[in-house]
Amino acid sequence: MAVYTHLGAEDLAALIEHYRVGALISAKGIAEGVSNSNWLIETTGPDGAGARFILTMYERRIDLNELPFFLGLLDHLAAKGCPVPRTIHDRDNRAYRMVGEKAVALIEFLPGVSVDHPAAAQARSVGAALAGVHLASADFAGRRANGLGLPSWRDLADDCGDTGLSSIHPDLPALVRGELAFLQANWPETLPHAVIHADLFPDNVLMLGDAVGGLIDFYFACNDIAAYDLAVTHAAWSFEATGEFRPAVAAALLQGYHAVRPLSDAERAALPVLARGAAMRFMMTRAYDWLHTPADAMVTRKDPMDFARRLRFYAERSEEAFPFTAD
Amino acid sequence: MAVYTHLGAEDLAALIEHYRVGALISAKGIAEGVSNSNWLIETTGPDGAGARFILTMYERRIDLNELPFFLGLLDHLAAKGCPVPRTIHDRDNRAYRMVGEKAVALIEFLPGVSVDHPAAAQARSVGAALAGVHLASADFAGRRANGLGLPSWRDLADDCGDTGLSSIHPDLPALVRGELAFLQANWPETLPHAVIHADLFPDNVLMLGDAVGGLIDFYFACNDIAAYDLAVTHAAWSFEATGEFRPAVAAALLQGYHAVRPLSDAERAALPVLARGAAMRFMMTRAYDWLHTPADAMVTRKDPMDFARRLRFYAERSEEAFPFTAD
Repeated sequence: MAVYTHLGAEDLAALIEHYRVGALISAKGIAEGVSNSNWLIETTGPDGAGARFILTMYERRIDLNELPFFLGLLDHLAAKGCPVPRTIHDRDNRAYRMVGEKAVALIEFLPGVSVDHPAAAQARSVGAALAGVHLASADFAGRRANGLGLPSWRDLADDCGDTGLSSIHPDLPALVRGELAFLQANWPETLPHAVIHADLFPDNVLMLGDAVGGLIDFYFACNDIAAYDLAVTHAAWSFEATGEFRPAVAAALLQGYHAVRPLSDAERAALPVLARGAAMRFMMTRAYDWLHTPADAMVTRKDPMDFARRLRFYAERSEEAFPFTAD
Repeated sequence: MAVYTHLGAEDLAALIEHYRVGALISAKGIAEGVSNSNWLIETTGPDGAGARFILTMYERRIDLNELPFFLGLLDHLAAKGCPVPRTIHDRDNRAYRMVGEKAVALIEFLPGVSVDHPAAAQARSVGAALAGVHLASADFAGRRANGLGLPSWRDLADDCGDTGLSSIHPDLPALVRGELAFLQANWPETLPHAVIHADLFPDNVLMLGDAVGGLIDFYFACNDIAAYDLAVTHAAWSFEATGEFRPAVAAALLQGYHAVRPLSDAERAALPVLARGAAMRFMMTRAYDWLHTPADAMVTRKDPMDFARRLRFYAERSEEAFPFTAD
């Protein structure tokens, strides 16, 4: 949550000149993104009526070769009516430009606010929007592998080591070992794929009341099992901060998805395994970050055990998690 | 540059309900302020036409008893036509509210961007705006002592110690000692006072081309010598990042100020001493922060020696700094 690079008014005005968006009026660095710097930009607009944009500078982690995938995906989905921000192209029709060594992109600003405690009606809208993304991505030409899929979980576990994992919680090494073996043996390989968001937590959804104003931050998007994305979203939306399961929110999310992109029997049957994988994915990246972030660093470390508890819930109570009673 | 407190959509919407500004549409945490958290808030507006605000949460350093001074000052200056943001009062006409243990204020959003390399025409506008603040504050009833005046510089020097100062630069202890003695002996006591901004660096001015769109961040404002505020602004605006003096910018700043609030002979004569004091103030707070901020902290330490060089410039070349040839 920071702005890593200083861009003064002169830099910003010169950059904005390259786009058909009018003149710079205001720019505020915004506290979003952990690997990007972002500014909320106001201009006079192409027609003088005013316009707003998010300017993103890619600071690290992003491979420049992948930017056409991420930015092209936004344009593809927006053109099909998905609530995602369009990429503004410059006067030479480029989706991104370089400022010094760093790439920047100008992105449509979407209204809305991220909720902390979603209502069922909001989860239903999110499920429907996610299904819409999966359908709309079917004819997207870009390809990107999921760098945070099952093989990576084993790599992260090896990197943390039993000593590291047990320093987080004494039960963690056995849980990780057992789950890795289970997921390796049971991971479904033949379910339909789509371009998936892969990180659709509430802070990546801008809500306008119960409606979805925008899905944002597609920088984990990749080609993978569509129902895995639903499982990730289920794991991200269906629990209280205290860890308690929220059945009404979970059911609404599944119903919202199913109403737009009906789940096959095979997908439904796989959801408990996919959800254990989703919980594993966030548990492992959080464990890695936990062990590699100094305790006194000015970033908030996220507790890996939140997802250890969700993982156990999915392993032990999958019929509660995925009841499918409503359809 | 951070948002220290998480406020979710539900918290923000509930807070905004207390004001006559319409419903919450969007909220972005912005990367401004070192002792506050700030959000750029968009609402439907009191008349449905949309409105924007800065929501500030006072995290530390600010004494709650001083908030009426800061917020009342903004209202007083705005009512007199100064380009400062008004405080939005809540439905009970309170200038600030408490959210848990912390005070929050809703502040008018002003357009404009902060320049890195001011043009002379911009400095002229800033000088005129600063003079306008000094004039408009004459009948402001609030009082606040300058906690970062001459006595504090000695306290900061004592706290840093010769060992600390020499760890920054071997020449620093002698420079500090000599200047403190000089300023103690020569500080003007009888010049006109005003409410001064006391920290009017370019990042606290929102420019719209060559015009001032807004003066912001009045949290160092206090009652002190009006010409000292001009000296602070001179020290903050008139040098290249490399340290080189910019005579055209400095002259324009002084002319802009003088055109609105003519400087007396005594004020002009005192400017070289006041500017040495201004350079001393920033040198000492930066030296203190330098020695008290871990080198690996995620905040950028500002080099105290930038202002040591400006101090020497003012001491040795005051006729260049303050030529007064143009009037």
